[in-house]
Amino acid sequence: MTTDAADLTARLIRCPSVTPQEGGALTLLDGLLRDAGFHTVRVDRAGTPNLFARWGERGAARSFGFNGHTDVVPPGDPASWTHPPFSGALVDGMIWGRGATDMKSGVAAFVAAAIDFVTRTPPPEGAVILTITGDEEGVSRDGTIALMDWMRETGERMDACIVGEPSNPEVMGEMIKIGRRGSLTATFTAIGKQGHAAYPHRANNPLHALVRLLAGLTAQPLDEGTGHFDPSGLQVTTIDCGNPASNVIPEKATAVVNIRFNDSHSGDSLTAMLRERAAAVEAETGVRMNVEVFVSGESFLTAPGPFVDMVQGVVAESTGMRPVLSTSGGTSDARFIKDHCPVLEFGLVGAFMHQVDERVPADQVRQLKDIYQAILTRYFA
Amino acid sequence: MTTDAADLTARLIRCPSVTPQEGGALTLLDGLLRDAGFHTVRVDRAGTPNLFARWGERGAARSFGFNGHTDVVPPGDPASWTHPPFSGALVDGMIWGRGATDMKSGVAAFVAAAIDFVTRTPPPEGAVILTITGDEEGVSRDGTIALMDWMRETGERMDACIVGEPSNPEVMGEMIKIGRRGSLTATFTAIGKQGHAAYPHRANNPLHALVRLLAGLTAQPLDEGTGHFDPSGLQVTTIDCGNPASNVIPEKATAVVNIRFNDSHSGDSLTAMLRERAAAVEAETGVRMNVEVFVSGESFLTAPGPFVDMVQGVVAESTGMRPVLSTSGGTSDARFIKDHCPVLEFGLVGAFMHQVDERVPADQVRQLKDIYQAILTRYFA
Repeated sequence: MTTDAADLTARLIRCPSVTPQEGGALTLLDGLLRDAGFHTVRVDRAGTPNLFARWGERGAARSFGFNGHTDVVPPGDPASWTHPPFSGALVDGMIWGRGATDMKSGVAAFVAAAIDFVTRTPPPEGAVILTITGDEEGVSRDGTIALMDWMRETGERMDACIVGEPSNPEVMGEMIKIGRRGSLTATFTAIGKQGHAAYPHRANNPLHALVRLLAGLTAQPLDEGTGHFDPSGLQVTTIDCGNPASNVIPEKATAVVNIRFNDSHSGDSLTAMLRERAAAVEAETGVRMNVEVFVSGESFLTAPGPFVDMVQGVVAESTGMRPVLSTSGGTSDARFIKDHCPVLEFGLVGAFMHQVDERVPADQVRQLKDIYQAILTRYFA
Repeated sequence: MTTDAADLTARLIRCPSVTPQEGGALTLLDGLLRDAGFHTVRVDRAGTPNLFARWGERGAARSFGFNGHTDVVPPGDPASWTHPPFSGALVDGMIWGRGATDMKSGVAAFVAAAIDFVTRTPPPEGAVILTITGDEEGVSRDGTIALMDWMRETGERMDACIVGEPSNPEVMGEMIKIGRRGSLTATFTAIGKQGHAAYPHRANNPLHALVRLLAGLTAQPLDEGTGHFDPSGLQVTTIDCGNPASNVIPEKATAVVNIRFNDSHSGDSLTAMLRERAAAVEAETGVRMNVEVFVSGESFLTAPGPFVDMVQGVVAESTGMRPVLSTSGGTSDARFIKDHCPVLEFGLVGAFMHQVDERVPADQVRQLKDIYQAILTRYFA
């Protein structure tokens, strides 16, 4: 059997699966996998769609897994796109659309590789397990976590797992991710006192307090990086007030800050730091500062060893580059898999992730499928 | 002739003249003034109702003016009021209703004073000019400006003018306004590059650029104040981005800044300063910064001299207080009159302006009428 991963990518892009919409993407994969002999289960939890698929017996002596997500971030203004964001247009060898790199292409590549691998003659000895979620870009509370919970409860098991997220900054084969930074999101609500812009002494401007807090938080880096990790990063992702009257000092404003942190911090240590800074601004300005923090993942690391070596070798053979072992970038669902089995991330080039005009070379998707298939072959050899 | 300014205030309050509605207020005054021998003209422009009234000859040797507005801000929920907002109820010596202080009472006081003054025996030598607009609380583009434009075009002239806005913070006679700060509103649009919060080196966060700009603008006062003026003030009135995804660095964000400035600045000098600061942040961050500035009024000052001295003297004799000469507070229509003739502001106590249960002591309105009449008498003596 030969499944075209590029064509499957385009079909997945045409499913408008902006988190938390399923958009038909998991349904499409479910059908293809069942046709290829996979046992599939929809492991939905709290409205989040998830798909589990296993070829081979539960409890097989050897079991290899892939993980990914079919949900995508919003496309923004569709008018800004050269080709419509859910078109999956193939133009000059590029597949265009939201999810083209992050990560419908990665899912398409491992699904195509798995189907072709298990339908070969003779069939492999062991099990191939795919866990695919519809909530990786959202709060991720009922996505891959739910799949791992369900696997534990039902006795499903993987010996090793690859997450198909884009792992290469610019060139195919240059990087494997063996760990990730942690992530937290803090929401600050500043509550001052409303008043006339001409009489500021009778008011207290919450925006001035927020600007002061955020200027302090963005003034210098959180750290310089550690042995396996890049420096931690802090981004203000939104500030909102919604005051339409330019002669009125508003009562309230909010800001959201996202921090990607390495192993020199923890969710707890950063939460304490943020609360301390907000309290200091509150004391200096008299503007009340409420802080809500959500830690979506601590940092983690899969130490180099046989599994990492094998993947590194296959990638080097296919691409001619020896991939660097890195922990750079954001969080991924690997943080939920690391307690189940050794996990690493290898996928496409991530350059256009989350951007307008997200796109991917069709040939690169086919190359990734070949790499995944070679990894399966090597693993079960 | 003796015209009761308190009764006229109540009659004006019963005209529901919320901007831009005329509500019958100017029509009522038009009739009264014509009956008293005034030449009146409705100087409406672009749907805004305005009333011009002159007693005496055009081009008289001496000509004194009053200015005010009959439009009012919305009353909010009428159920919150002790007496209905358009009732003009007289209860225990207080007149209740929207416009009781801002500024149907002030208009009633100068209209009553002018009528009684010009109908005395013998009649005064010179001209008394009243300019009354129905748009001071709105955008003010076709109110007092239209009246001044029309006067210039038709050769009408005042030698001096009093705006009857409430000028006293708490006690009748404590303050005359001889100037006002200017006001401008600047809208900054920061356009960076969208991207994933975990890969900030591939994006460019417009919020960080905005925070940097606003932190600089709010870090220290614009000046220390000048001879007649308080320090200028800068307030950030809103910041908006509307990015719902905490893992996405947004492409665009906006901020609005309002500046109330004294005579050490001008609209032009501040516009240049804001553009310079924005350009510096643009150069430092690579985030494009668009700046739009609307100058709604320059600062102005009517320097102390014979006119100011005379009004100060009359107020002191009537109230027993020597009024402070101030330039505090927001803008007023005096900014449109200052290029026509020397102008100052004296009126009632402004404590209840724009509030629920706006009200005024009837005796205070009568006292203001007496002060205005004494000013006319002194001026034409």
